[in-house]
Amino acid sequence: MLHAVVLLIGDELLAGEVRDLNGPYFAEHLTACGFQVQAIQVLPDITEAIVQGVRHALGVCNLLVVCGGLGPTSDDRTTEAVVLALGRDLLLNGAQWERIRQIFASLRGQEPPPGNEKQATIPQGAEILHNALGTAPGYVTEEGDCIVAVLPGPPRENQPMFQTELLPWLERNRPGRSKQVTRVFRVFGLAESEVGSRLLPLEARYPNVRVGFQFHFPEILAKLRGTSNDPETLDRASDELKERLAPHVYGSGDAMLPAVLGRELSSRALRIVTAESCTGGLAAKLLTDTPGSSAWMEMGFVTYSNAAKEGILGVPAHLLQKHGAVSEAVVLAMLNGAFERSSADVGLAITGIAGPDGGTPEKPVGTVWIAWGGRGRLKTQTYRFGWDREYNRLISAWAAMYHLVQDVLAA
Amino acid sequence: MLHAVVLLIGDELLAGEVRDLNGPYFAEHLTACGFQVQAIQVLPDITEAIVQGVRHALGVCNLLVVCGGLGPTSDDRTTEAVVLALGRDLLLNGAQWERIRQIFASLRGQEPPPGNEKQATIPQGAEILHNALGTAPGYVTEEGDCIVAVLPGPPRENQPMFQTELLPWLERNRPGRSKQVTRVFRVFGLAESEVGSRLLPLEARYPNVRVGFQFHFPEILAKLRGTSNDPETLDRASDELKERLAPHVYGSGDAMLPAVLGRELSSRALRIVTAESCTGGLAAKLLTDTPGSSAWMEMGFVTYSNAAKEGILGVPAHLLQKHGAVSEAVVLAMLNGAFERSSADVGLAITGIAGPDGGTPEKPVGTVWIAWGGRGRLKTQTYRFGWDREYNRLISAWAAMYHLVQDVLAA
Repeated sequence: MLHAVVLLIGDELLAGEVRDLNGPYFAEHLTACGFQVQAIQVLPDITEAIVQGVRHALGVCNLLVVCGGLGPTSDDRTTEAVVLALGRDLLLNGAQWERIRQIFASLRGQEPPPGNEKQATIPQGAEILHNALGTAPGYVTEEGDCIVAVLPGPPRENQPMFQTELLPWLERNRPGRSKQVTRVFRVFGLAESEVGSRLLPLEARYPNVRVGFQFHFPEILAKLRGTSNDPETLDRASDELKERLAPHVYGSGDAMLPAVLGRELSSRALRIVTAESCTGGLAAKLLTDTPGSSAWMEMGFVTYSNAAKEGILGVPAHLLQKHGAVSEAVVLAMLNGAFERSSADVGLAITGIAGPDGGTPEKPVGTVWIAWGGRGRLKTQTYRFGWDREYNRLISAWAAMYHLVQDVLAA
Repeated sequence: MLHAVVLLIGDELLAGEVRDLNGPYFAEHLTACGFQVQAIQVLPDITEAIVQGVRHALGVCNLLVVCGGLGPTSDDRTTEAVVLALGRDLLLNGAQWERIRQIFASLRGQEPPPGNEKQATIPQGAEILHNALGTAPGYVTEEGDCIVAVLPGPPRENQPMFQTELLPWLERNRPGRSKQVTRVFRVFGLAESEVGSRLLPLEARYPNVRVGFQFHFPEILAKLRGTSNDPETLDRASDELKERLAPHVYGSGDAMLPAVLGRELSSRALRIVTAESCTGGLAAKLLTDTPGSSAWMEMGFVTYSNAAKEGILGVPAHLLQKHGAVSEAVVLAMLNGAFERSSADVGLAITGIAGPDGGTPEKPVGTVWIAWGGRGRLKTQTYRFGWDREYNRLISAWAAMYHLVQDVLAA
């Protein structure tokens, strides 16, 4: 396995003035290219800090990507630090200097200002990585077993440079990296620790497969990572993972629960109606996030007030008085009312107390009633969620969709 | 000047599976609290790597913030590494263990599964930092001249913990840092470059005030940063900022547009109805994100299909046929229909082509019609947004709320 380290240079990143986009980008794309990223480090525009970062990385990785600090001003110190760390001389690259002069001549009809020579100066022995969108080129060189690649900071410059300059260079100079494959399984309705303990035996049973988790409220992503040259082992581990977590693995890959529900509705030519109180349109919003949802989304009712529940969905006033708005009787009446007012085939309804206010001793914040199912065959379930308003709403909408997709699959 | 180092722990960050939000947050907020952030480092869930990162940081900073790797599963190794680096023993905190047991009992009526004890185990001598939103607590301890604070990875857990637990602890134990004050102004409806050029003269006019921007789609945050001992200068700079951006500064501080609209409705005892096509419930969802929105949210209609527009909102079929669903006539009919079916005082309606499909040469993807206003005095506006589905939907909902809040303020 080849190891990579990423150094991101810039005071503005450490002061929180600019949100770093380079770390996540290089993490994702270096991983996809078969590197294991060992560390990402943000360092200030201080020569000595960069020298130390480069020296340390040279000893522990096969590819060091340094990003940022290649500008023309005095606080851009990356190249100075790189030559100090590598013990190289600095060289003014004639072709690059000519290119910078041409850019200034064509853009502004003038000579480059003092300082821009710096952007044509690279460590001796390094090769230029061409920057189509700016005056700062990147460069790449080898030092012992480590490849050192230096790129400018702006993502819209360094991302195309990574794809069209650095990757082809690596392909020419370090061909044949084994690629890693990650399979993602989406889990709803189990605690993270429960998922962890159910999958604990997997790594022992499949030594070349790494098991990971990611809690992405309200779902958990369970991940299997292996090498692309052994898909059979990954297949067996995937099957076992699904068995161990059944029936809570609702899907795999990128499609989240609303899209999975939409896909199942679409393939059965079913249309859906929603009736929401505490979630206030969130379930409808999640469903219509999916492109093409007009094929299966019929309509939605946001009946936040009791007056709306009565007036728009025809929930009988005596049910609201006797049982309260958060009750099985009312959630059933909401969904039946939604069916009466639409031609949808399936539906879901949600009423609850999202918080922070509105709780009572009998119905504390987090109490939710959910109804779902096909026309004339409804099911209900109550929950007492213990989160804040945002999470209580989100998990309520997901629980309703989760029950409905199970129902659609079983029908 | 006090120095800080931030360590972010997680394989998923190094593999690019999760976009790190913690680095930028702690960079910004530690800087605002008077720390100079010296390095931010992302490390894998490997004990030895974390031990080395902690040991190195102990020697170079006054505050080390370690974030992530506190979950209950076997790949969460932060606390193990911290005790190794500090040479401490591990202690099961009885009060925290009792709290975890209560969370499991109230949520699921069951015992915590094996592994959860780990989340009550902290280094000897450390103090618990309470986590109101999860089972993983944080903790803080001193080692020589360095304060070591360990927080869970999810931003919505660690950000409130930073504000309500760690900062007060620092105030008690390391008082008297010179404070920076940041004022945030929320801007909608101007391009980032336009905001930048309008505010360009500010830094020259107020030398002790630093101007920053943050593009947080679909709004822009304009920030003024100064020292807490000169509020008058900040006041004058704030007034000038608002003048230069008028009328696009819709608020300041933490309250986003839906909450601002809700506040203005609430103070005037007005109730709102929504009628949404392409946004599919997003506007209703955004409005009801606000706690207490039942005071001013009457109801919402998600009329995604033409049948729903006709059947539920009474949009005449001939308007749909003649003008199409995305037209001024239909958006007006939607909002009028919503008023007829509710007792709301004000409302908004949105119909458009969110994409990626459904565009035509005359009405390309991104075409949106919006209507808003009080009963009987409606206004309309059309837009042609150039984003993807998610952003087209989000900016459409925001534009409708922005127009309505201006209308409510002017009425």
